[in-house]
Amino acid sequence: MMTEYQSLSKEELSALKGELEEQYREFQALDLNLNMARGKPSTDQLDLSLEMLDGLNSESCFFSSTGDDCRNYGLVDGLPEMRAFFGELLDVPAENVIVGGNSSLNMMFDAISCAYISGFDGCAPWGKQEKVKFLCPVPGYDRHFAICEYFGIEMIPVPLTETGPDMDMVEKLVSEDESIKGIWCVPKYSNPSGVTYSDETVRRFAALRPAAPDFKIFWDNAYCIHELTDTPEVLLNLFEECKKQGSENMVITFCSTSKITFPGSGVAAMASGEKTLATYRRHLSYQTIGPDKINQLRHIRFFKHVEGLKEHMEKHRAILQPRFASVLNALEKELSGLGIAQWSHPKGGYFVSVDVLPGCAKRVVQLCKEGGVTLTGAGATFPYKKDPNDTNIRLAPSFPPVIELKQAMNLFCICVKLAAAEKLLGE
Amino acid sequence: MMTEYQSLSKEELSALKGELEEQYREFQALDLNLNMARGKPSTDQLDLSLEMLDGLNSESCFFSSTGDDCRNYGLVDGLPEMRAFFGELLDVPAENVIVGGNSSLNMMFDAISCAYISGFDGCAPWGKQEKVKFLCPVPGYDRHFAICEYFGIEMIPVPLTETGPDMDMVEKLVSEDESIKGIWCVPKYSNPSGVTYSDETVRRFAALRPAAPDFKIFWDNAYCIHELTDTPEVLLNLFEECKKQGSENMVITFCSTSKITFPGSGVAAMASGEKTLATYRRHLSYQTIGPDKINQLRHIRFFKHVEGLKEHMEKHRAILQPRFASVLNALEKELSGLGIAQWSHPKGGYFVSVDVLPGCAKRVVQLCKEGGVTLTGAGATFPYKKDPNDTNIRLAPSFPPVIELKQAMNLFCICVKLAAAEKLLGE
Repeated sequence: MMTEYQSLSKEELSALKGELEEQYREFQALDLNLNMARGKPSTDQLDLSLEMLDGLNSESCFFSSTGDDCRNYGLVDGLPEMRAFFGELLDVPAENVIVGGNSSLNMMFDAISCAYISGFDGCAPWGKQEKVKFLCPVPGYDRHFAICEYFGIEMIPVPLTETGPDMDMVEKLVSEDESIKGIWCVPKYSNPSGVTYSDETVRRFAALRPAAPDFKIFWDNAYCIHELTDTPEVLLNLFEECKKQGSENMVITFCSTSKITFPGSGVAAMASGEKTLATYRRHLSYQTIGPDKINQLRHIRFFKHVEGLKEHMEKHRAILQPRFASVLNALEKELSGLGIAQWSHPKGGYFVSVDVLPGCAKRVVQLCKEGGVTLTGAGATFPYKKDPNDTNIRLAPSFPPVIELKQAMNLFCICVKLAAAEKLLGE
Repeated sequence: MMTEYQSLSKEELSALKGELEEQYREFQALDLNLNMARGKPSTDQLDLSLEMLDGLNSESCFFSSTGDDCRNYGLVDGLPEMRAFFGELLDVPAENVIVGGNSSLNMMFDAISCAYISGFDGCAPWGKQEKVKFLCPVPGYDRHFAICEYFGIEMIPVPLTETGPDMDMVEKLVSEDESIKGIWCVPKYSNPSGVTYSDETVRRFAALRPAAPDFKIFWDNAYCIHELTDTPEVLLNLFEECKKQGSENMVITFCSTSKITFPGSGVAAMASGEKTLATYRRHLSYQTIGPDKINQLRHIRFFKHVEGLKEHMEKHRAILQPRFASVLNALEKELSGLGIAQWSHPKGGYFVSVDVLPGCAKRVVQLCKEGGVTLTGAGATFPYKKDPNDTNIRLAPSFPPVIELKQAMNLFCICVKLAAAEKLLGE
């Protein structure tokens, strides 16, 4: 029977704290060096795509479906068959897709760079506008926020609810303030909370009427087919909803195979309306002669079609699912009923999001670090790395083997309890 | 015995023009569709690197020399062994090299983007400075000039002499005008004229004392080992000369394997002083998690060392040399002694540069186009596509087979003569 920490007397808490400190010291003596900081696929997952490398060799045919030699310059939009492939995956027409290099983050950065240097929709470049702001659903992805910081874009946090960003707030802000130029979204199995936006949220996004004519929704569909259960959550097709509203140039969707084949050696893609793509394509035409089409060919020969991709994702799931189970079991066993933590139960994606007692997240991450387990920095999931309540911690279960995860989670739970006891004792 | 066109009477010229028109019409009847527009390797050249694709397969080891799994995220500066490889190639320390993605053009664009967004050397970002200018040795590479246009950078042409850019002019301009922030250089076998900068030119570059503290030399060493003869021209090491002067942060060197392995699927690299690299690396850290290290590994396993690379380049030369000979023979046979054209005799690189009579370049390119041979647009080798004398034409002999080149050059020479006759007749 669990007792909430809040109902313990000071003496009981002190005694408990002593026990926890003892357990913590035992962990320190183990001299662990574990890492749950980043959403990095495990070695087993990388092995799943090794055969892809056999698919192209010196005997292969290197012509694209359009008869272009994939080994030479050209095709700045990517291989036609890869555009069709990502089009099917994202459920948008192939002509609305640009297939790029090895990183969707790079494409997002470049899209913002394009807005900053040359501007979207006939508006002044963001770099020449007095003030540019972005809405940032929180908790969110640190690298999105970092891009804003780099470009001097002011970030406004918007709470992420169980159905997506607080749309009342989003609608109000974007309709009133024309310096708000964009919003970061991870609409399916969001990083870190695992939330999938509801149909209503998606429809309200499509229906947005922002004051800024050059407002863009950065729709980072990073986990579009990254399932952990038999009952996938279904994200409504924003591009389709936008088309109904005539607003398809307002959304730019991104995805990649980084967590499908090889991180760093995968293929990234983006999709948008014709007008937005034309502006981006102009940027691209100055930046490069074309993407790595051999790697695109390697990918399409390996998967053949989206069904092949989905079968491949089942193999990832088989590797990831036990890791997530291990993390969630530990949280359930050690922390439930104590009133000191809440956590997500993701059906996909790469993270478990834990909210500890206000003011305790930094302390927990520090304790873990000193105990030999590196976590994502506390605050990382908020703009400017400032979690106002110092409560959110992102756990990334994908990389360590289950045996290490168990150890790491044992330590993590001790640290959460210890930090809570310290806090409640007013230390 | 050749007679200069300038010494022909009006009647002789008219008769000649009639003959040339007849020859031109015969060509048109052939309905050719040939292309000498871009410096694109031929299919034979692409075949030279096919074995590289066999070097990495599902049985390979994917650890870098530092024990990192090349299949996963990380190593934003590139594989250590690739940094060493490019360091040896460019004769700079490995720690001064960043190995990136598939395109050196992309790295140049990103370096300017970095200056535009965050600035170099503690100066205001170029995007926030009132005026930014670049020196552009002419004729030069159209894609360099296009990047300047995109960023709104004003271009100042500087004549390229047989020993490199007019250094008196470069020194005077950069020391007087602090809005001059950079210069584009293709220092070896320059695009299009084939000039290699002299030792004195390189030393004068190293000794530049620009008024702008954030002045950068964009040293695009695209043809550093792209020889066409047994007697390579030797470019003095600018980085080394700069180090002697303490100015190594002023130069950014670029190169890639695009014309060594596969265009679009090669590996690009840049090198500079520590301070400049730190600024660029910061930019990079927001833009991407890391480059395609599997492709880097594939390259280093294929070449093993710079000697292997040089042996590989001999094979390219064997394919390219007859193509260049075919172009130069045609020019020699058809145009020498006529007083209507001069051309380069490159010992490396990818182009032959032809200067026709002033006011004739556009006409020649148009005549060729209508005769079935696409050339680089006249003016492309100058900023804003404006060749003040309308005289320079860039020929790219690498892609078409020799048999096609011969046809194309026959037509080209007829067009040069025809345009000259028209011009001298005052038409």
